[in-house]
Amino acid sequence: MNKKVVLAFSGGLDTSFCVKYLKEEKGLDVYSAIANTGGFGEDELKEIENGAKQLGVTEHVTLDVTNLYYRNCIRYMIYGNVLKNNTYPLSVSSERIFQAMAIVDYARKIGAQYIAHGSTGAGNDQIRFDLTFQILAPEIEILTPIRDLTLSREEEIEYLKKRGIQKDWTKLAYSINQGLWGTSIGGKETLTTDQALPEEAYPKQLKKEGSEELVLTFEKGELKAVNGQVFPNPVDAIRKVEAIGADYAIGRDIHVGDTIIGIKGRVGFEAAAPLMIIKAHHLLEKHTLTKWQMYWKEQLANWYGMLLHEAQYLEPVMRDIEVFLEHSQANVSGDVILKLHPYRFETVGIRSQHDLMNSGFGDYGEMNKEWDGNDVKGFTKLMSNYLKVFNKVNGFDVETGNNNG
Amino acid sequence: MNKKVVLAFSGGLDTSFCVKYLKEEKGLDVYSAIANTGGFGEDELKEIENGAKQLGVTEHVTLDVTNLYYRNCIRYMIYGNVLKNNTYPLSVSSERIFQAMAIVDYARKIGAQYIAHGSTGAGNDQIRFDLTFQILAPEIEILTPIRDLTLSREEEIEYLKKRGIQKDWTKLAYSINQGLWGTSIGGKETLTTDQALPEEAYPKQLKKEGSEELVLTFEKGELKAVNGQVFPNPVDAIRKVEAIGADYAIGRDIHVGDTIIGIKGRVGFEAAAPLMIIKAHHLLEKHTLTKWQMYWKEQLANWYGMLLHEAQYLEPVMRDIEVFLEHSQANVSGDVILKLHPYRFETVGIRSQHDLMNSGFGDYGEMNKEWDGNDVKGFTKLMSNYLKVFNKVNGFDVETGNNNG
Amino acid sequence: MNKKVVLAFSGGLDTSFCVKYLKEEKGLDVYSAIANTGGFGEDELKEIENGAKQLGVTEHVTLDVTNLYYRNCIRYMIYGNVLKNNTYPLSVSSERIFQAMAIVDYARKIGAQYIAHGSTGAGNDQIRFDLTFQILAPEIEILTPIRDLTLSREEEIEYLKKRGIQKDWTKLAYSINQGLWGTSIGGKETLTTDQALPEEAYPKQLKKEGSEELVLTFEKGELKAVNGQVFPNPVDAIRKVEAIGADYAIGRDIHVGDTIIGIKGRVGFEAAAPLMIIKAHHLLEKHTLTKWQMYWKEQLANWYGMLLHEAQYLEPVMRDIEVFLEHSQANVSGDVILKLHPYRFETVGIRSQHDLMNSGFGDYGEMNKEWDGNDVKGFTKLMSNYLKVFNKVNGFDVETGNNNG
Amino acid sequence: MNKKVVLAFSGGLDTSFCVKYLKEEKGLDVYSAIANTGGFGEDELKEIENGAKQLGVTEHVTLDVTNLYYRNCIRYMIYGNVLKNNTYPLSVSSERIFQAMAIVDYARKIGAQYIAHGSTGAGNDQIRFDLTFQILAPEIEILTPIRDLTLSREEEIEYLKKRGIQKDWTKLAYSINQGLWGTSIGGKETLTTDQALPEEAYPKQLKKEGSEELVLTFEKGELKAVNGQVFPNPVDAIRKVEAIGADYAIGRDIHVGDTIIGIKGRVGFEAAAPLMIIKAHHLLEKHTLTKWQMYWKEQLANWYGMLLHEAQYLEPVMRDIEVFLEHSQANVSGDVILKLHPYRFETVGIRSQHDLMNSGFGDYGEMNKEWDGNDVKGFTKLMSNYLKVFNKVNGFDVETGNNNG
Repeated sequence: MNKKVVLAFSGGLDTSFCVKYLKEEKGLDVYSAIANTGGFGEDELKEIENGAKQLGVTEHVTLDVTNLYYRNCIRYMIYGNVLKNNTYPLSVSSERIFQAMAIVDYARKIGAQYIAHGSTGAGNDQIRFDLTFQILAPEIEILTPIRDLTLSREEEIEYLKKRGIQKDWTKLAYSINQGLWGTSIGGKETLTTDQALPEEAYPKQLKKEGSEELVLTFEKGELKAVNGQVFPNPVDAIRKVEAIGADYAIGRDIHVGDTIIGIKGRVGFEAAAPLMIIKAHHLLEKHTLTKWQMYWKEQLANWYGMLLHEAQYLEPVMRDIEVFLEHSQANVSGDVILKLHPYRFETVGIRSQHDLMNSGFGDYGEMNKEWDGNDVKGFTKLMSNYLKVFNKVNGFDVETGNNNG
Repeated sequence: MNKKVVLAFSGGLDTSFCVKYLKEEKGLDVYSAIANTGGFGEDELKEIENGAKQLGVTEHVTLDVTNLYYRNCIRYMIYGNVLKNNTYPLSVSSERIFQAMAIVDYARKIGAQYIAHGSTGAGNDQIRFDLTFQILAPEIEILTPIRDLTLSREEEIEYLKKRGIQKDWTKLAYSINQGLWGTSIGGKETLTTDQALPEEAYPKQLKKEGSEELVLTFEKGELKAVNGQVFPNPVDAIRKVEAIGADYAIGRDIHVGDTIIGIKGRVGFEAAAPLMIIKAHHLLEKHTLTKWQMYWKEQLANWYGMLLHEAQYLEPVMRDIEVFLEHSQANVSGDVILKLHPYRFETVGIRSQHDLMNSGFGDYGEMNKEWDGNDVKGFTKLMSNYLKVFNKVNGFDVETGNNNG
Repeated sequence: MNKKVVLAFSGGLDTSFCVKYLKEEKGLDVYSAIANTGGFGEDELKEIENGAKQLGVTEHVTLDVTNLYYRNCIRYMIYGNVLKNNTYPLSVSSERIFQAMAIVDYARKIGAQYIAHGSTGAGNDQIRFDLTFQILAPEIEILTPIRDLTLSREEEIEYLKKRGIQKDWTKLAYSINQGLWGTSIGGKETLTTDQALPEEAYPKQLKKEGSEELVLTFEKGELKAVNGQVFPNPVDAIRKVEAIGADYAIGRDIHVGDTIIGIKGRVGFEAAAPLMIIKAHHLLEKHTLTKWQMYWKEQLANWYGMLLHEAQYLEPVMRDIEVFLEHSQANVSGDVILKLHPYRFETVGIRSQHDLMNSGFGDYGEMNKEWDGNDVKGFTKLMSNYLKVFNKVNGFDVETGNNNG
Repeated sequence: MNKKVVLAFSGGLDTSFCVKYLKEEKGLDVYSAIANTGGFGEDELKEIENGAKQLGVTEHVTLDVTNLYYRNCIRYMIYGNVLKNNTYPLSVSSERIFQAMAIVDYARKIGAQYIAHGSTGAGNDQIRFDLTFQILAPEIEILTPIRDLTLSREEEIEYLKKRGIQKDWTKLAYSINQGLWGTSIGGKETLTTDQALPEEAYPKQLKKEGSEELVLTFEKGELKAVNGQVFPNPVDAIRKVEAIGADYAIGRDIHVGDTIIGIKGRVGFEAAAPLMIIKAHHLLEKHTLTKWQMYWKEQLANWYGMLLHEAQYLEPVMRDIEVFLEHSQANVSGDVILKLHPYRFETVGIRSQHDLMNSGFGDYGEMNKEWDGNDVKGFTKLMSNYLKVFNKVNGFDVETGNNNG
């Protein structure tokens, strides 16, 4: 009986090559698996399954982890307003981890001796797969034919052709990775540092002119309703927001950042729903959280995003951060009003019973009965004490702004 | 001989009232002073001076601290990409401090016994004035007639009228504070939490359609050229960028945040130059700084912005942060390309000899000769060690994502 | 019917004066209350009660909040290894908050119109009382006779004498505040900056020579057993550790730090149990937590200690931090061995089933089968990538350690 | 002509084996080099040189980088009070980097094609050497015979014996690494998690009873005088402090922490001078710096220590942190008084003209003329505003300490 390998299969040239290679050169029974985190439709998945079977896999499975991915990851990215480098909603990087976890879970269930993936040696994804596989199943060996063999596309096509697999493997001008939390776009422009992606590189094109209002309703930090329509499953609410925003071609940008392997990378993306939801959520927090809650949420959430991006989702501190973020959302409930225009949106305002601004306590900049001028004098007197002492002791030079040490 | 009071004078109703009040009720010689941080034109300043003289001040001075303000503050806000709550370039809050420092400096020079300002008891500005005055000149007493007397506008107008001062004191629908680093806008909408400012509230209206490219050139973090035109004084470069961006009505938003006195406040602003310069500068840093440089810059710069906003500019840690920020800019030189459209702009890319992405060392996502698949295997093996150990010791539950404690 | 005032009563001169003053000058019914956070014994509390009655209070209550104080505060300080300025276990500062909360709770229950405390205008305690009272019962007015009248001790004694109250009010050479989490000691030396407290200033004197071992057992971060003796209530375990450590005069030091009112303060303390428990707990964490868990715990715990010290216990972010800290303790279970000597102790080691060092995975510094030299080469090759790129682009000057910008 | 290899040579069995192996098996001209960071005496260095020559090296050099190491590293660790995990002064970890930089500098000067070191595959040092060599001289190949061959000590001894090299290679019970900034000690106990090192494992034994005072004088953060004796070179001051403290067997502890390769490690150390200097310096800072200066210094310095420990000294952010730390020291000047006892020391106090506590402005806890009770009322009123608003909006449950979200 042959040993079993579970192959993370996408239906593309690289993983198609892997099926044949693992089966014929390595003598393994190939179990192909695709983990769907929300980016694939029914038809696509069916087509991928057919491709796998045609290549001769022993079994093919589709592992749907969309809801798990929302519950264990996207939710926290919303709580934390996570935008890597203040720009990128970690569209692809976060999905890979959940795909890898699903794959390794399946591999353990069927008692596979090997797990294989089709990543090259050049990017972040190989690290995400390798790390997750090793950590969760150190007893399973990882196979990476594409990374090890460094074949050209032509060689791979030739190899498949010889084994009776013929397909149109033409590389698209732009490599697209679509998921629930955004679509990443790579192309010849993203290899430069000074060129934008052309209009046609974006899968979702502008369809509407003019502008419209969009109301997002949050309950304890989670998206519950869109324009008044309640969604029991937040995943559906996200899809609704995406559909609305995509017609305005909202959420395009280019992310530049450090890869796990130490070099800078640049990638385009479109992510209407993530950007509108995060900006709306952040505005609601400005009205409902205290200054230090916002400060520490930001600290922890940035870190959460960084470790997630760098394949450290399984680090235990992530679970500690998650309970902090969840607890901070107790009062983050209410409506946020956005206004959408072609290629952009504005945050108009919020309505919430937890709004700390509409407390009837005192309006900023308006006359106030809760304190008077004397209170302010006392306040500033005590607030300035430490600097009065400092300057008395050390002097202060107005010209240079320095104390004389 | 009467005692001297220096009055921070703006020419508005409140400070006009103060002149008469301090002179007639308190028997003081009033020295009115206006500190210009870049927001006032020649004509305005002349008009304010005339108003002061008409009110009977002993002396009126205009203190121009625009360059000082740039050198000791704006510069660091650019180095640090400072946007309060990820939105607001601290347009007004930073200027007030430099105005207060100029006033107190003048008061000490002429040997004044008092400093007066016309702030009410409701906002941040009174804190900024009080704190700065107290810290730099604890021996000078602060007078705050407006805050103490809590008169209505009508009462102030009546008081002035009786003393022969008649002017059109009609309150504008929107209170505008214009400065080099942006314009703040308050009105009835900003007292709500769910309404945007109307188009007419913005002083700078859309004048251009279509789009154009804008190239900003930085040298060690400072803006040196705009579309190739070199500006020896960065203040002039900022004005140039503002003029270009304002025609596209770029840089509008609403800031919601915690005031120094503990309640939430909301204010509109337009700040084309600050937003375009900061976003451009930030992009250049993504290409030229290491991950940890960006991390720690962000930590320190957020803090810098917070203390600056909260009138703690004179805290010595600010000087320590400034040397860090300046030192971090050694390689932040190059061109940044923006594309401007009505109401928005995109960052297109950068060109820099310090670009860490164009190093010829290896392109992200492309085949690479500096390392191979085996190196990556060793890398991920050692990177995963600590979590392998952790899971071996504590177990890992894939369902809950938790370790069993 | 007179209005009611609840007075935070300690039995000392200041609060004794307050009883008479509030009753006779203000015409109030005085309800004296003492909140015990673990520092008072039965006899002391009885004596204080008698004193109150003798002064003519309407009612006197003892509010025991020791267990609440442990559960809602000390516990988190242990989880967080909280030592202010790396020295001080926040002995007094944390207790005051729980005393204030108990007082205000009582005041609301009996429908008091006023709350009074006997703090002067010079220290942190007045802030802790004022803030807590105002936040939890903004409708109750705060009375502070001692702070307002600024009487000398002699005047207070005279006032009481005239009203028939005679007692030995002689001030002790050292003011002592004893509590469950340590004892603070102020005296003439702590007003200097260069003198230590003399041996006799410390309430707990050295009683043992030689040395002994002490084993503390933690379960999910809480102290459960001392030398094998299990304590269902951690408060009792703390008292046991204190008794053992006090005989060695362990835990003495001087805290120097910033007060809430902006000036530097210096105070001695002895805190055998807090220091031994925290150092033991910290050692156990070094063996059972990951690097980033320790990093973020430290960040949040330092902040927790700072806000607690500065009377901001009620800030909502504190609750968010608490859930983080608690969650982080899942694996912090095991024995810690200490060795006690006169005036000092050492941490010897730990025994824990969650020990990440004894995993059988690989010993640090010993030959290892989990990875080989080639893996390390790959690891360092990828780890060094970003700096190779950086130096290639920017050069590196070995002499100055700087890159040429 | 043979190719050249520079070998980091210590005179021990491993590097002695390397000389012969590189020369005879690899046919290289071996240039042995030892970089002294302050841990070696003249005699030792001479002996090491003789050993090298006896083994047949082409050239042997001693590279003295003690002063450079102080100026570019120790100095900043003092400014930053760097103690890894709150315990360990990074004695060995910091030295390795400077040794590696000296070696690579020498290798480039003589045009070597290879650099070799004798580290095994089990510890941090291999990473420190590999990373530093690769970053500073990516064109030079690294050879690691010990790591690659994984020979036993017996095999190495046999190999050398066959080639005429006979010496007493008996392994000592404890491996000792002595340096200017402390001595690390490994032995069978440090491989356990519950055993202390025995008394005899420590090279520096207790020589004095009783106690004595020690006065350390700092100037802008640097140690300038010891008991009044001025040292132009701080390196000599450090040696003086070490000599005084070592007689009391001060500065012993065990460090437990995360290694760069991901497993936990445990190592003993004795470091009298580092611990006394850092604790003294820290106390002086508590008196001379503001709260936020201390806060941010600690943040940056902990990070500095972590990166230094993990072989990332060359990361550019380290240079940015250094300028911050240096700038923060402007007022950190004055005397610090310590009291030494067997195995321990106390910090007694400080004397400094920059002492913020002795300002004549107001003493903590004493009656004060700079502010009165009304000022404090205003202060606490405004400080409590935000929580009054929060509780008004969200309610507050005294039992649970939670707001009702």
